[in-house]
Amino acid sequence: TRTYSISVIPGDGIGKEVMPEGIRVLERAASLYGFAIEQKWQDFACCDYYARHGVMMPEDWKAQIGNPDAIFFGAVGWPDIVPDHVSLWGSLLQFRREYDQYVNLRPVRLMPGVPCPLAGREPGDIDFWVVRENTEGEYSSVGGKMFSGTDREVVIQETVMTRHGTDRVLRYAFELAATRERKHLTSATKSNGIAITMPWWDERVEEMAKNYPTVAHDKYHIDILTAQFVLNPDRFDVVVASNLFGDILSDLGPACTGTIGVAPSGNINPDRTAPSLFEPVHGSAPDIAGRGIANPVGQIWSAAMMLEHLGEVEAAGAIMRAVETVLAEPALRTGDLKGKATTEQCGRAIADAI
Amino acid sequence: TRTYSISVIPGDGIGKEVMPEGIRVLERAASLYGFAIEQKWQDFACCDYYARHGVMMPEDWKAQIGNPDAIFFGAVGWPDIVPDHVSLWGSLLQFRREYDQYVNLRPVRLMPGVPCPLAGREPGDIDFWVVRENTEGEYSSVGGKMFSGTDREVVIQETVMTRHGTDRVLRYAFELAATRERKHLTSATKSNGIAITMPWWDERVEEMAKNYPTVAHDKYHIDILTAQFVLNPDRFDVVVASNLFGDILSDLGPACTGTIGVAPSGNINPDRTAPSLFEPVHGSAPDIAGRGIANPVGQIWSAAMMLEHLGEVEAAGAIMRAVETVLAEPALRTGDLKGKATTEQCGRAIADAI
Ligand SMILES: CC(C)[C@H](C(=O)O)[C@@H](O)C(=O)O
Ligand SMILES: CC(C)[C@H](C(=O)O)[C@@H](O)C(=O)O
Repeated sequence: TRTYSISVIPGDGIGKEVMPEGIRVLERAASLYGFAIEQKWQDFACCDYYARHGVMMPEDWKAQIGNPDAIFFGAVGWPDIVPDHVSLWGSLLQFRREYDQYVNLRPVRLMPGVPCPLAGREPGDIDFWVVRENTEGEYSSVGGKMFSGTDREVVIQETVMTRHGTDRVLRYAFELAATRERKHLTSATKSNGIAITMPWWDERVEEMAKNYPTVAHDKYHIDILTAQFVLNPDRFDVVVASNLFGDILSDLGPACTGTIGVAPSGNINPDRTAPSLFEPVHGSAPDIAGRGIANPVGQIWSAAMMLEHLGEVEAAGAIMRAVETVLAEPALRTGDLKGKATTEQCGRAIADAI
Repeated sequence: TRTYSISVIPGDGIGKEVMPEGIRVLERAASLYGFAIEQKWQDFACCDYYARHGVMMPEDWKAQIGNPDAIFFGAVGWPDIVPDHVSLWGSLLQFRREYDQYVNLRPVRLMPGVPCPLAGREPGDIDFWVVRENTEGEYSSVGGKMFSGTDREVVIQETVMTRHGTDRVLRYAFELAATRERKHLTSATKSNGIAITMPWWDERVEEMAKNYPTVAHDKYHIDILTAQFVLNPDRFDVVVASNLFGDILSDLGPACTGTIGVAPSGNINPDRTAPSLFEPVHGSAPDIAGRGIANPVGQIWSAAMMLEHLGEVEAAGAIMRAVETVLAEPALRTGDLKGKATTEQCGRAIADAI
């Protein structure tokens, strides 16, 4: 049998609650579609590793993780123990950079059974991808402070964009658009205000577009683009964005389709020089953790994205059909979707529906 | 009679079409409320001044503008003639900095007659302010390019935040919150990802909060905050944000309440060391310019904000009541709000309704 080695990092809070459901569904899909999942669990999280060692991961974390076919990630963060920027830069953001997962891929899709906050929208109306640059840009660690603690205090942080880093994510986005029916790409910019990096981003988009004559493209400034997500979400097909803008759009998009609780994300190294990482869009949610009520769909949908990445396209499709079946059934949904199911009940229902 | 000197800069595209309606309403309010408006018009725009001189404004623009009580601004930008970052940095963004208009104040309010894209929301449900830092932050002009034109190309732009610049806008926002019924302030951050400037921003918020014990405050990361604007817009009272985040939120907010076509904005120098500037949130809209169909409400609402700033509070209130009356009347609305009125018809209706 085909065997995939998966590094499993549940993390903190509801990450620990939704992960078992993701695994349940993965194992069920594996047994039905004739492949095996080999799991190696890691406790790299605030409440586990950090609480004991004062760092998010051991120095030899790469060796400990080994060379898995993919990483299945829950959610990290527990501000009572460690500030978010320390925990995230010590784990998730580090993986993205160190494993060169330069594409963050997130679907925005209106699913049956998920109440849409936008008036008059039906499943099928909204269906697009956000392709986010995932290793550089506004998420830099370069900068610092001067005149600290005085009235003259100045804090500087640099946005760093490279042609290497920008072109490769643009290429991925154009390639993706070329495979789609509508073949349309929208670039998120802010070249009227952020007047050094963003006009240059626009130029790189125009350059790259020349290689894809079948793909139509346009651009919106990020301010009006967020407005368009609300007003005309059916307009979009593939949206490509810098690290920060992609972060914003890939939370806003799922909110426009009802909830970030069901949204998945792939942190992808398209060159496969290192493992890719799959995680729900939601965080560790300390406010609802420990009650068994978190929605496991984001984690499960991430499992489907992971299987697709591994080439198990049929199994991935089967999981997504099961998700749609269960979401359409009020009794099987979790409380955030006005259902009564626990995390586990919802997860079991999806596993059973495959 | 009380007389106010106003610098009038209609700008480009629909800026030129909505400005006469703003002026019409101002003059009507003046005659009814016993004050006078002294206008000085300037053609600082792409299609006028730039087309003739190759720059957006003359070197002595400050002298030409003089020392008005306020600036009434339409919209600038005409990308066929000059790239947006050149035109905006040469006019609007320059005013904001040179006149130290460090607060950009924008209401988010669901108005009668404006169809709301969010399901089940009524006028009254959504009513808050976005307070945006307006002179520094992500809109810096510091940075540059290396290895230009090669595969090693690197582009850097610095976000610059100062204690001086941050504290004063936070103070303004807390003061505003303290005057409101709900006394609630939300700070937009991204301290989990933008790990140098934003954790510091959070610290400044906490420091400032100590001076306002009656104001409750919380913070959201910008990604989830945009999601909350869509999912729970009734949660907000005063939202304070950096330059870029405020830019995004003050387009998204008006979109969540129907359209950016009616939204106004004040670029305010609270210390009154230089004139403040009032403008609609929308841009010059080359796509619909010249057809007389643009919605003049953003410009007119800006006139009301300007009068309030000048101390003509009653006249400002009267204009807002007239705006609400006219918006509630389908026949008097412009096409973007499914009406049939022209820009001028809508403007006249509002002037008559005062
Ligand atoms: C035109 C542009 C530079 C401007 C900005 O980003 O500040 C506009 O979007 C605004 O919000 O006033
Ligand atoms: C937790 C945070 C650092 C992270 C990000 O901003 O990238 C998250 O919001 C995401 O989108 O994966």
